[in-house]
Amino acid sequence: MDTAEISATDVALAVDTAWVLLGAAMVFFMQAGFAMLEVGSVSIKNTKNILIKNIGDSAMGAIGWWLFGNGLAFGRDSGGFVGVTGFALKGEDLYGTSTGDFDALSYANWLFQWTFAASATTIVSGAMAERATFGAYVLHSFLLTSFIYPIVAHWAWSDGGWASARLADDDDLLFGCGVTDFAGSGVVHMTGGMAALMGIFILGPRAGRFNEDGTSNTMPQQSAVLQTLGTFMLWWGWLGFNAGSVSSFVATPAVAAKVMGVTVIGGASGGITSLLVNKLQCGYWDTGSALNGILTGLVSITAGSGTYEPEGAFVVGVLGGVLYFFASNLLLRNHLDDVVNAAPVHLFGGMWGLVSAGLFSSKFAYAMAYSEDRSDTCAGILYGGSGGTLAANIVFLMAVLAWVGLLTLLLFVVTKLTIGIRVSKQQELAGMDDSKHGGQTFPELLPRRRTVDRPGSSFGAGASANI
Amino acid sequence: MDTAEISATDVALAVDTAWVLLGAAMVFFMQAGFAMLEVGSVSIKNTKNILIKNIGDSAMGAIGWWLFGNGLAFGRDSGGFVGVTGFALKGEDLYGTSTGDFDALSYANWLFQWTFAASATTIVSGAMAERATFGAYVLHSFLLTSFIYPIVAHWAWSDGGWASARLADDDDLLFGCGVTDFAGSGVVHMTGGMAALMGIFILGPRAGRFNEDGTSNTMPQQSAVLQTLGTFMLWWGWLGFNAGSVSSFVATPAVAAKVMGVTVIGGASGGITSLLVNKLQCGYWDTGSALNGILTGLVSITAGSGTYEPEGAFVVGVLGGVLYFFASNLLLRNHLDDVVNAAPVHLFGGMWGLVSAGLFSSKFAYAMAYSEDRSDTCAGILYGGSGGTLAANIVFLMAVLAWVGLLTLLLFVVTKLTIGIRVSKQQELAGMDDSKHGGQTFPELLPRRRTVDRPGSSFGAGASANI
Amino acid sequence: MDTAEISATDVALAVDTAWVLLGAAMVFFMQAGFAMLEVGSVSIKNTKNILIKNIGDSAMGAIGWWLFGNGLAFGRDSGGFVGVTGFALKGEDLYGTSTGDFDALSYANWLFQWTFAASATTIVSGAMAERATFGAYVLHSFLLTSFIYPIVAHWAWSDGGWASARLADDDDLLFGCGVTDFAGSGVVHMTGGMAALMGIFILGPRAGRFNEDGTSNTMPQQSAVLQTLGTFMLWWGWLGFNAGSVSSFVATPAVAAKVMGVTVIGGASGGITSLLVNKLQCGYWDTGSALNGILTGLVSITAGSGTYEPEGAFVVGVLGGVLYFFASNLLLRNHLDDVVNAAPVHLFGGMWGLVSAGLFSSKFAYAMAYSEDRSDTCAGILYGGSGGTLAANIVFLMAVLAWVGLLTLLLFVVTKLTIGIRVSKQQELAGMDDSKHGGQTFPELLPRRRTVDRPGSSFGAGASANI
Repeated sequence: MDTAEISATDVALAVDTAWVLLGAAMVFFMQAGFAMLEVGSVSIKNTKNILIKNIGDSAMGAIGWWLFGNGLAFGRDSGGFVGVTGFALKGEDLYGTSTGDFDALSYANWLFQWTFAASATTIVSGAMAERATFGAYVLHSFLLTSFIYPIVAHWAWSDGGWASARLADDDDLLFGCGVTDFAGSGVVHMTGGMAALMGIFILGPRAGRFNEDGTSNTMPQQSAVLQTLGTFMLWWGWLGFNAGSVSSFVATPAVAAKVMGVTVIGGASGGITSLLVNKLQCGYWDTGSALNGILTGLVSITAGSGTYEPEGAFVVGVLGGVLYFFASNLLLRNHLDDVVNAAPVHLFGGMWGLVSAGLFSSKFAYAMAYSEDRSDTCAGILYGGSGGTLAANIVFLMAVLAWVGLLTLLLFVVTKLTIGIRVSKQQELAGMDDSKHGGQTFPELLPRRRTVDRPGSSFGAGASANI
Repeated sequence: MDTAEISATDVALAVDTAWVLLGAAMVFFMQAGFAMLEVGSVSIKNTKNILIKNIGDSAMGAIGWWLFGNGLAFGRDSGGFVGVTGFALKGEDLYGTSTGDFDALSYANWLFQWTFAASATTIVSGAMAERATFGAYVLHSFLLTSFIYPIVAHWAWSDGGWASARLADDDDLLFGCGVTDFAGSGVVHMTGGMAALMGIFILGPRAGRFNEDGTSNTMPQQSAVLQTLGTFMLWWGWLGFNAGSVSSFVATPAVAAKVMGVTVIGGASGGITSLLVNKLQCGYWDTGSALNGILTGLVSITAGSGTYEPEGAFVVGVLGGVLYFFASNLLLRNHLDDVVNAAPVHLFGGMWGLVSAGLFSSKFAYAMAYSEDRSDTCAGILYGGSGGTLAANIVFLMAVLAWVGLLTLLLFVVTKLTIGIRVSKQQELAGMDDSKHGGQTFPELLPRRRTVDRPGSSFGAGASANI
Repeated sequence: MDTAEISATDVALAVDTAWVLLGAAMVFFMQAGFAMLEVGSVSIKNTKNILIKNIGDSAMGAIGWWLFGNGLAFGRDSGGFVGVTGFALKGEDLYGTSTGDFDALSYANWLFQWTFAASATTIVSGAMAERATFGAYVLHSFLLTSFIYPIVAHWAWSDGGWASARLADDDDLLFGCGVTDFAGSGVVHMTGGMAALMGIFILGPRAGRFNEDGTSNTMPQQSAVLQTLGTFMLWWGWLGFNAGSVSSFVATPAVAAKVMGVTVIGGASGGITSLLVNKLQCGYWDTGSALNGILTGLVSITAGSGTYEPEGAFVVGVLGGVLYFFASNLLLRNHLDDVVNAAPVHLFGGMWGLVSAGLFSSKFAYAMAYSEDRSDTCAGILYGGSGGTLAANIVFLMAVLAWVGLLTLLLFVVTKLTIGIRVSKQQELAGMDDSKHGGQTFPELLPRRRTVDRPGSSFGAGASANI
């Protein structure tokens, strides 16, 4: 195409594509953020183990999403439940912009949606850290990205899903509105958080985590620096996570700009609140509480990030920060050992996010981000809406809990009964780096311990990593 | 809006918005860079303390800027001194693009300017590290972002500020030109650097930093790796810091492209020079000198990043690298203990940046970035300008020194006399992580020391961070 | 320019510029990735040494590319071999968009191409780590960025290079197609990888790396965490590396979107394969193998990233992952000590990348990314092409081996005979941080060792880094 012949519409399509691609890149960077947060939260003896799970999430997830996930999520709808075309990025005509399935924006959306699927999946690795087998994790990672998550995404975000707000005919919308989950409090975070909860339930707590009298012990955390770095990376990527969800950027740049601002306010308010609550309850300024409060704030405002006023996002974030503290204690009281507090952040934050989008979405913002016609009825009930969005969001919330909960429960139980889900007590106490990954990290800072014989040769590829 | 109806002007506005939003994201990432640089520069015993200050800067700064800062800086002008509208992102009509205060670009600018305010504020935390109280830091952080910094930004960058180069009528411009501070050598860096200098002056040096005979001792630095990572992150974010300041990207893409190139050259020349100067004076290749030289080069070219030729940026950066060495020694000779050399980098680099913009701005570049009409008079005096820019920049420089110096001096003195600005000697020697943040980091690498009793329970939220 | 007068063509040019600038920023971030990967791969005793080499690459490379490199690479062609104008960013008219040499896009391309040159150069530092002198490294770094690399770039990517696919007249194209090296498997990665191989050949292995019976010992690696962080940063930057190479984004957004997708698939498939091969051969799940497999996959698909279908990229990446394992062992068998496996990743991956682009480029994709007219003949032979691309790519591959191999061999031999290329045995065993960089890092984690006297004063600039 000669640039002299280019029309404004051509440029607009290119800009929309660029926006989604850059959003995809920013969300992909969250994989590095999750990896740093998780490795910072585990013991040194499981360093390589958690790193390789994060690397594997990205790598296997990409292949699974390419071959299966994207088709199930965004292929042609079948019965409101699942997509049935577009597997392996194949459509009728890969290059036609008018007739084919995959034009520039479709390719960009494929990539963007992969980064979302990968985010949902990697949430689980941190919760189950320090005692899950590698095989169990690989199996879960592939199935979540390739099958369980795509179905959820189809329900909410495809143009045919039963809960989608993007159906062609308004009359078909769930409660007249469809679900308002702009960037995935439910689709992404509840899915990852619920899978994490089922995982730690089946897996059981780490050795030494809980005492017989019901109290708990804190376990060694490798580095608050890495946890902080990871959280900053996640917050940064979240700007793309939420604002990149504006797929028609040129038509609505104000929505994208406001979404980014709201994302900053939501994270900030969650972090401050959680820091203060911990100070009041436990007496000290806790880095981890501030960091996880930021993340819970971010999860909380994600569903309504397209439809909030700044003050709404502030309130939602503040309550998210409070919620984090109590959800975290709830897990401890039930002896559920979630190494990175993934369920409090992502599952509880995600549920609150879906509910709050039904409460705090303003009419003005709903009109710009979704539909002017139904903004009067579908706004949040605190902004005069009729409750259709709240009802749709609660139904969708329950559907996600049921679908993800049942399937991951089944998956982890079957795994436990077949290939095994948990390493031996001996391996757990020694750490998994020695027995599975060729030796511990930080040989110069730590005395060498070798409590389990390991295979491997001093003459091989990857030597630079094989200490 | 249907994409078929989109005009080139619509697309241009969207692209301008996208450019500012992406710039904002890049500058926000600098918060992670500052955090890594600062934590790498302090002792391990103050790890969580410096991390939580950086997290707090981002979080509280966002709330303060949303509620107060942006209105004071960019609201409707009152007397050339301060803005008085637009608080909490409220205007007459939030959504109208023709009548309201906050259209897409306004939202984007709000976010972009927040990241600048947060950068100015976080500069201070590193300088005052390892002995300032948490309360004093929180108070300073909130007031700098919400009040002190916004006034400076209003003077230079609003369309009504007394020193602004963007006034409607050229006759009102200070010395016929207004201040040339394209991306904030003065507004951002001098503000942060001057507050840092006042802070360390009131706070006094760390225990053991200076000897009675006038010599100084180097204090334990946690990790040159983290300092390097942070500096790379800052350099990267600086591309957005400077080039994102081109708010009409579509009209002047060449300015943005040149700004990015100049930013690379300025950082590179500062780093090389500082490395060489330290080698000549001290006899070894010092990582910290190279890193801080890069930063000083970047600060130095920021004011004129829109108006330099590449060779001008090179000279300015080289001299910035030399300046860093002598400014750093000047502080030491006066027993001012600046943990990360924030004042040499940001205050001295910032002053040199304002002066050099009055010397090295070319006519061609000034015409593109500011105004063709006054490029003959307002160019740098080395490029044939009449000195109006140099005069305006020097007056603005003095005004920033006075305003920020007096207010932060007052703030820190009042803090010292009321809630206290410095931790106890016992806490300082033991490090603040133990007494205030629930225990030291790196429990597996360090023997546990508990010299101060700490509150806190083994049963609480944030357990993953509470070692 | 008033935005009301803006045409779609103006906006398109601005968007094309923005795309290249953002790509440049993403690739610049790879400098941080290389630094983290390399520092994670060396012993703690050489931490500052490897950091300062990475900092120096960025800084000196910027100056060298500004003054010399860009002109040699992309100035007006002389004889198909070298460019001869545009040094120091000077052209006939720096600001004219119709008559001058440097318009917005030219400035953006200058920056983008600098980041490529810096990538090629920094590949070498990791291979030669832990025993090369600082002077030898500085000399190599400057010459590679300023002279050796630019010539290679000129051959393949300028509009006059003998191997270029962008010549004005199709009849002049090498084998009727010219080289298909979309983002530089050959230009960037083979150049860096071949220089690395020559470097370690002349330098010899680290003390203790190989035993007399032919076996090898693994050397202490500082941190698998930093290696992982660096690899994630590189993968992220690679999205900009490949997709940013689409210089007419608005005309072909689908190419850019597909390039990004292909980049994800290529890295993922390489990482999975390499992880599995190592498990099968060595018996454990090796983090380093997964990480280097990702990188080899990425290098492998870079040449054809504009012309592959996703399934083609998958196959190329899988084979790249296998290749890595055997190339790494080949080096070890020949007692070539490549600290970060730079040659297996970049040289062998790069060669495979050039070959595979001649095999797997599809007609559809070639038509969009290069030329519709010659897509039938220039597609990969597995997609029905006539082999012209394969022939051109193999000739170019041999030319790069010869040019880079001979010049860097000469450079390193001359260096060895004059200023010296290797530190003393005493310095090597003690590590270079003590003797050259003012003392070891991590003073709080490591007992202090001072086996070599060092110069330097306790009173000097850069004190924060001088432990």
